[in-house]
Amino acid sequence: MDTQELIRSLSHSTSSKIILLVLDGLGGLPQPETGKTELETASTPNLDKLAIKGVCGLSDPIAPGITPGSAPGHLALFGYDPIRYEIGRGVLEATGIDFAVQPGDVAARGNFCTVDGNGLVTDRRAGRISDEKCTELCQILDRQHIDGIEVIVRPVRGHRFVAVFRGEGLSPEVNDSDPQQVGLLPLDITARNIESVKLANIANKFISSARELLAEQNPANMVLFRGFSGEPGFPSMKDIYKLNPAAVAGYPMYRGLARLVGMDTLDTGPGISDVFATVKEYYEKYDFFFLHYKPTDAAGEDGDFDRKVKAIEEVDEALPELTALDLDVLVVTGDHSTPAILKGHSWHPVPILLSSKFCRADDVKNFSESSCVKGGLGRISTVDIMPLAMANALKLKKFGA
Amino acid sequence: MDTQELIRSLSHSTSSKIILLVLDGLGGLPQPETGKTELETASTPNLDKLAIKGVCGLSDPIAPGITPGSAPGHLALFGYDPIRYEIGRGVLEATGIDFAVQPGDVAARGNFCTVDGNGLVTDRRAGRISDEKCTELCQILDRQHIDGIEVIVRPVRGHRFVAVFRGEGLSPEVNDSDPQQVGLLPLDITARNIESVKLANIANKFISSARELLAEQNPANMVLFRGFSGEPGFPSMKDIYKLNPAAVAGYPMYRGLARLVGMDTLDTGPGISDVFATVKEYYEKYDFFFLHYKPTDAAGEDGDFDRKVKAIEEVDEALPELTALDLDVLVVTGDHSTPAILKGHSWHPVPILLSSKFCRADDVKNFSESSCVKGGLGRISTVDIMPLAMANALKLKKFGA
Repeated sequence: MDTQELIRSLSHSTSSKIILLVLDGLGGLPQPETGKTELETASTPNLDKLAIKGVCGLSDPIAPGITPGSAPGHLALFGYDPIRYEIGRGVLEATGIDFAVQPGDVAARGNFCTVDGNGLVTDRRAGRISDEKCTELCQILDRQHIDGIEVIVRPVRGHRFVAVFRGEGLSPEVNDSDPQQVGLLPLDITARNIESVKLANIANKFISSARELLAEQNPANMVLFRGFSGEPGFPSMKDIYKLNPAAVAGYPMYRGLARLVGMDTLDTGPGISDVFATVKEYYEKYDFFFLHYKPTDAAGEDGDFDRKVKAIEEVDEALPELTALDLDVLVVTGDHSTPAILKGHSWHPVPILLSSKFCRADDVKNFSESSCVKGGLGRISTVDIMPLAMANALKLKKFGA
Repeated sequence: MDTQELIRSLSHSTSSKIILLVLDGLGGLPQPETGKTELETASTPNLDKLAIKGVCGLSDPIAPGITPGSAPGHLALFGYDPIRYEIGRGVLEATGIDFAVQPGDVAARGNFCTVDGNGLVTDRRAGRISDEKCTELCQILDRQHIDGIEVIVRPVRGHRFVAVFRGEGLSPEVNDSDPQQVGLLPLDITARNIESVKLANIANKFISSARELLAEQNPANMVLFRGFSGEPGFPSMKDIYKLNPAAVAGYPMYRGLARLVGMDTLDTGPGISDVFATVKEYYEKYDFFFLHYKPTDAAGEDGDFDRKVKAIEEVDEALPELTALDLDVLVVTGDHSTPAILKGHSWHPVPILLSSKFCRADDVKNFSESSCVKGGLGRISTVDIMPLAMANALKLKKFGA
């Protein structure tokens, strides 16, 4: 029995409520001039107040040294081992545009590309066409029905799109058509097992049809496919935790990830106050809220230390709107670190703060990387956060007699 | 997929360089009079300077409470789960005398012993003959060819030697000939499966031949074998990490262990300055250096607290010769603890210090067990050290999108 099985066997529903507030890319690295990270630089009186009452620590989303992408980082936060629970590329792409992949669907990442008169690929990205052109071309290809299977085509960005094959009897174990270099013909889609032959045939017919439909659309006169994958069929948080969970996230990717683990997704406005207001509005309806805040990560990715500081301060300032809700368990953390000086995700463990009536508060007086080092949670694995939140909400029964 | 597989899928080669400086048996226990460990007693201004800039912690080589031998301790440092990656006794013995066991070889640990006129074992250690006598007897037995298999015999120490069976079609699943007590006949070597019958036959022929060749060599007139084992076929560090790794180690055991994971071994002199000079000499050629320093462990094993303190100070004094090399990532740690008051290896977690531009420095101001407790790395598993070093060298790509 793994830990998730154990949690499933011990969890029970109660009236207490858990809030998981994720500041994307929260963890940082010190600015060389000041020796302080973004979080240490930010003025965060409200988070610090929570840190005093709560228990703090650091968590590794995957394992020490591993830099997580957004999907594995969030799966870990939801208590799903991100090495075991994989999301295929096509499904992730669909998730990123808030397309609800259904059980039985197969999603593939598509590129518009350019082929010459002999069918040889001359540009794998079709000259990086505009978003508008991509949308227009997707409309040409969308909603075809091939041998009883519907093919739904949605634009992503530039030359990228998603195709979702929907209908009976599809299995995603087929190879890519993208030859990965120019000067070659697109590959036929081939099945890796007998169950996938149907999908391979339909995908090949779709590609032939696309070539005809796009003939006059040079430079985007052909498509390439990669990463066919099915709805991953993850166990639901409702099943594992007996929770009625909701996601409040402005960005499609995070709504999509939440949906894959069985959360309802609630519409919200762009600011953190909007997110908190949405929680307030639905507070009676759900007992678990995943709140996602993107600007911390976006600023980190841009290498903008000061903007990341301000993004953190913005959350801190609005925090009383959330804490006014008389919360049972509040967790504040990130899905990974995004230090501005690295301009990207990193492997550094993420600060975490857990506040509840039963959390066994530690000596940490402010919420920061260096304080969290000395926190009562120590250095934990991110998949342990949900069990800790559940325990603090008194939603886990005793194991064994 | 386990963590090592994950690392393999994420690692890529860059120009940055990693130094892993292993002070064997570094961790200690306080001298009752002073309350300070060996490392805390030693004057270590250079290590302390690194600790201030770096991040510290404690690591468990195997698991809390488990005392590691040299082989598991080092495998963990190299990022190989020491419970999963086993080295057979014969191969370990060969490794300890710097004998390069090749794929297909089978190595066995041998004892010279004494048998009486009826062939019954009267002394399993042949009166503990001298190293010189052992060498002489090994020369008598060495380089026999039996049914197309070459048997290479090398002295270890006293009554101990290694026999390596080299040739086609050998499989090491055979039982020992050592009856483990006196008054019994040596056992015939028996195969545990059909593949190993050939080795069993050849080993029995070798034993018969040895009895004849040693007939006049009382008390060392017979041999006993234990621990037949093959070259373990570990994945190479080159493959897992895309590193070009080198070991700088004076002791044969550590060169041997490094060789089993695919490191080149560089000749070096006896002192730590020699080791550092060797790194300098080869600095352009390799991107990973494992440096091994034995005197800390040797002093601990002897129960010589003061000598262990001096051994640590010797490294500290020479350290600027190493740090002058403008290192990207430097890790200083041990393979296990060897507290002088225990006169042997122990289970205590080992201090670790990691220094790099991106390490997220903590508040630790000196390198010691008690300071490392409060370090930013927390308490990690030793197998996590290589991923952390790789991450800090920016040699690991992001996991997932």
